[in-house]
Amino acid sequence: MRRGDTLFFSAPPKIIATGTIAGPKESAGPAGRYVDRALSDDMFGEDTFERAERAMLRYAVERAAENAHLAASDIEAMFSGDLLNQIISASFAARELDVPFLGMYSACSTMTESMALAALTADGGYAKYAVAATGSHFASAERQYRFPLEQGTTRPPQSQWTATGAGACVISTEGEGVSIVSATIGRVTDYGVTDVNNMGAAMAPACARTLAAHFRDTDTCPDDYDLILSGDLGVLGSDILRDLCREKGYDISAKHADCGALIYPDAGREYQGGSGAGCCAIVFNSYVYALMRSARLKRVLFAATGALLSTVSSGQGESIPCISHAVELRSGQK
Amino acid sequence: MRRGDTLFFSAPPKIIATGTIAGPKESAGPAGRYVDRALSDDMFGEDTFERAERAMLRYAVERAAENAHLAASDIEAMFSGDLLNQIISASFAARELDVPFLGMYSACSTMTESMALAALTADGGYAKYAVAATGSHFASAERQYRFPLEQGTTRPPQSQWTATGAGACVISTEGEGVSIVSATIGRVTDYGVTDVNNMGAAMAPACARTLAAHFRDTDTCPDDYDLILSGDLGVLGSDILRDLCREKGYDISAKHADCGALIYPDAGREYQGGSGAGCCAIVFNSYVYALMRSARLKRVLFAATGALLSTVSSGQGESIPCISHAVELRSGQK
Repeated sequence: MRRGDTLFFSAPPKIIATGTIAGPKESAGPAGRYVDRALSDDMFGEDTFERAERAMLRYAVERAAENAHLAASDIEAMFSGDLLNQIISASFAARELDVPFLGMYSACSTMTESMALAALTADGGYAKYAVAATGSHFASAERQYRFPLEQGTTRPPQSQWTATGAGACVISTEGEGVSIVSATIGRVTDYGVTDVNNMGAAMAPACARTLAAHFRDTDTCPDDYDLILSGDLGVLGSDILRDLCREKGYDISAKHADCGALIYPDAGREYQGGSGAGCCAIVFNSYVYALMRSARLKRVLFAATGALLSTVSSGQGESIPCISHAVELRSGQK
Repeated sequence: MRRGDTLFFSAPPKIIATGTIAGPKESAGPAGRYVDRALSDDMFGEDTFERAERAMLRYAVERAAENAHLAASDIEAMFSGDLLNQIISASFAARELDVPFLGMYSACSTMTESMALAALTADGGYAKYAVAATGSHFASAERQYRFPLEQGTTRPPQSQWTATGAGACVISTEGEGVSIVSATIGRVTDYGVTDVNNMGAAMAPACARTLAAHFRDTDTCPDDYDLILSGDLGVLGSDILRDLCREKGYDISAKHADCGALIYPDAGREYQGGSGAGCCAIVFNSYVYALMRSARLKRVLFAATGALLSTVSSGQGESIPCISHAVELRSGQK
């Protein structure tokens, strides 16, 4: 069923297991205790940043399958994408995994886009086990989007730090887990921000719009949720999000947390926090999923956010179009 | 229902309308008589190649909606992607269209990936009208993947020519049209080709694998189809595809055509033919769709093919992973 921009799953598919891996900096934050693998070296044994990124993505998928007591070959559909040009991390990981592969691109909202489509596919009876997965790597993103690390460029105070790591979840109509009750599909939103160092400000309007659409379509309000989790707006972007939601008539301040703001122990001091597709993939699939499985969180609205720019679009003077897809999650539903 | 890698739609969604636009070179070929708009200037009134590409994609979606007697705002889900880094053509077009947007990346197999997921979404009752769309532009692709045009680089004989143009189709469970009966989801396949000028050879194994999976899952053979349409293997790649299919026990030679081999009037003389996400988007949504609507073609297996490389992956010495998603189409089914 559909209402507005929200899809409702009648027999909600469940996230039956997750797999996560995080870099050293990311493992030092609150998610560090919950990830399947906390790395001491962000090269993960590979010789390039890009190979390390794809190896982490592959690890997350294989680990999620293992945690679900499945072989990787049991996966009937893999929904995945990443930040690198032509999503090479996902494509090359899918080559090794050898499973039916559907390539996604939604920048840092790839996690929830993939979860929504995997849930839809499972719900329709088209896959017994579908996987949603994404990741990112600080060093590969820096040199693609900004400057080579060797250049030692100073980062401005409004910037965020691309998270190193990956997260994956197995979605199925069978078994126990966290239910995906509904999904609100985002619309591209652009308030005219052109500062490529201020992604939080660029993405907040898309997130506010999707949250408002979700509350409207589901006839709910922020108080109905234990947690409203945005993707990677960071500290500054989170402030903007709460303001924009208030303008739309929704006070989310008591329920809101942001993966970017909470992933690093020192967020708010040196930077605005984490970003990158891997940021919310790590935080959700480790920390938040664990809290939901133990029913410490019962109802969560998870809205990852993505900035759909490229170096070419910015170079041609375009502002930053953004999007946010949301999934509504419940613990303990049969 | 699912069997193997193939999804079967019990009440098949239909392609109720299409929209197409093609550059001057593409309009000179057999699809030229069938496209909604044949351009005499491939800049389409814009000041950069990238802006021209996105304007074409937007035109195709709006024209498809118009041909379905819909407003663009009636579209409940837009599945789209393109070849440019971070799929800026699709994202920026979706910003203007202001519809729920799901970003795809499957290189030149984006058309069939999008059609498969749009059909799945419509079939599940999650969208009354879903759109699948993609496009490409020779000049934006050349400067991103290869060399600036101004450099005047000589093209090798095994190369293909990225098509300029776009195609879109409206998929619905209501109305008359061409039914999407099933979809076979591709697996990433890599036979070790490293020549970035020989995409046809790189992609043919992925296409052969998907076709064989489709025949196996649907218990059909090539003779059951009026047309087996590959995406953009070109002349040389098509030869390889037919050989690989024969090795797998399927002789497709009497039924096979390739969008890349047929899009240009002079294919086989100067180049191996067309390529780019727009190539099969133009040919299928104009020429082939028209032949299906008039029932001159009754059953078509459409397998677009994509090469999932990037300049970074090739620069790091990787071979070219490829994929092919297929959709099975029938005319005149209620």
